[in-house]
Amino acid sequence: MSGFDAVAHAMTSIATGGFSTYDASVGHFDNPAIDWAMSAIMVLGSIPFVLYLRVVRGDLQPVFADTQVRWFLVILAASILLTALWLYRGDLMGPLDALRYSTFNIISVMTGSGFATADYGRWGSFVVSIMFVLMFVGGCAGSTTCGIKIFRFLVFFGTVRAHLRRMVRPHRIMSEEYGGTRLTPELSFSVLAFLVVYMGSVGIITVALSFFDLDLVTAISAAATSVGNVGPGLGPMIGPAGHFAPLPDGAKWLLSFAMLVGRLELFTVLVLLDPDFWSK
Amino acid sequence: MSGFDAVAHAMTSIATGGFSTYDASVGHFDNPAIDWAMSAIMVLGSIPFVLYLRVVRGDLQPVFADTQVRWFLVILAASILLTALWLYRGDLMGPLDALRYSTFNIISVMTGSGFATADYGRWGSFVVSIMFVLMFVGGCAGSTTCGIKIFRFLVFFGTVRAHLRRMVRPHRIMSEEYGGTRLTPELSFSVLAFLVVYMGSVGIITVALSFFDLDLVTAISAAATSVGNVGPGLGPMIGPAGHFAPLPDGAKWLLSFAMLVGRLELFTVLVLLDPDFWSK
Repeated sequence: MSGFDAVAHAMTSIATGGFSTYDASVGHFDNPAIDWAMSAIMVLGSIPFVLYLRVVRGDLQPVFADTQVRWFLVILAASILLTALWLYRGDLMGPLDALRYSTFNIISVMTGSGFATADYGRWGSFVVSIMFVLMFVGGCAGSTTCGIKIFRFLVFFGTVRAHLRRMVRPHRIMSEEYGGTRLTPELSFSVLAFLVVYMGSVGIITVALSFFDLDLVTAISAAATSVGNVGPGLGPMIGPAGHFAPLPDGAKWLLSFAMLVGRLELFTVLVLLDPDFWSK
Repeated sequence: MSGFDAVAHAMTSIATGGFSTYDASVGHFDNPAIDWAMSAIMVLGSIPFVLYLRVVRGDLQPVFADTQVRWFLVILAASILLTALWLYRGDLMGPLDALRYSTFNIISVMTGSGFATADYGRWGSFVVSIMFVLMFVGGCAGSTTCGIKIFRFLVFFGTVRAHLRRMVRPHRIMSEEYGGTRLTPELSFSVLAFLVVYMGSVGIITVALSFFDLDLVTAISAAATSVGNVGPGLGPMIGPAGHFAPLPDGAKWLLSFAMLVGRLELFTVLVLLDPDFWSK
């Protein structure tokens, strides 16, 4: 790897940006050491940056005590292991290669980096589905990743659990917490609204894209990958081995708007569409 | 149409159930009069039943004044017209046939009946996408239809609009209404939680189905059609011209559970999974 390539890839992996200097992305190098190093860097770029201040002060413990980081690592590890197992059981590759390729590509999609070392669209139904779902997940809040983010899922699960318990025992006084912070109704509400608007945006963009003769897998994965700022989609055209150039111009405008909406976390853009915002 | 067929189809269309006495569903009869009549009956079965009490008393006005019914008819009409236009422009059929087939099949999917008069999976990308999205929508609350239902979408839009306006003018006192009822925080909250749990269930069931080697379109549409209690899915196997028999047994168990969860509106079943429910 030349010095220029090394600097370029270092910058786009810590920023979970995913831009590579080669068309075949990181698959160009075909080097296990590069794959493992970049996998680690992408994970580091998806952890809340404020925790690194603690690490600089010599205190590693807060990083692993953080609920969000823990769940991020659990979801990541589970997805990697299931995918590696699927690849190995399906006789697609040996155990070490299965682990190496699944680690790099799962991390790349879940953190929204968007690098690829293989055409995982051909790895069979389970890999396609899990990649599709991971596009929505994202990394930790407080990092450079996009998507829904682990923080919101934790608030959501805490909220639903509280809701279920109130259904069973309506008169019990409860206080739900997330990582030491109380789940206030305002927090729960804004997270739930975000999740629904996110799914709704993906749905609307999918239908709009299908006007341009794109099949359902291409349309829905293009919508999800753009709102989530991931990078590659799924299907023969925009999958990890393809690119977005063959899409019609109208679809490109639509996806550009989707990336903007996703990066600015929805409400900042939606508020501009409300006539009330423009009235004095 | 024989007397028996007439009674069977009358019962399953007013109940938006979708069971037909023929393998080709209502397509077996290939009769425009039957298509139009059943389209009307399915719409009647998707309107809040309590409004019919007013009609019996001779007062038609409340039916058309109801916000939910209005939006239900607007979404239905827009989807039918766009689909008919797509079919006509794509030279798939003449204008009258386009209107007849799009009316029947759009109504059947959106109301969650599940009849079919044609293999709309072959009508091109736009029809596949809009059918997929309509599977989630459903009819009006207070009728026999399943899915998310128009009522929840109205509460959701009202809630998001109020949220956006509070972002712009945090100190303004506002009161959001839906059809004369105030949108209380409790109502908004439970609707948002329902929507997220609904989408989450579809996502989890999709990943689980993909373990059984089902492609993404089959897996995600099977999940959506089961949770929404619609009937046919999309794709070559479970589309309107196919059936669910070739699915592996494990997938069938999973989809049976999904139908139960969807029909009981999620929380009733989810509460059983909380250990807290079983403790004394």
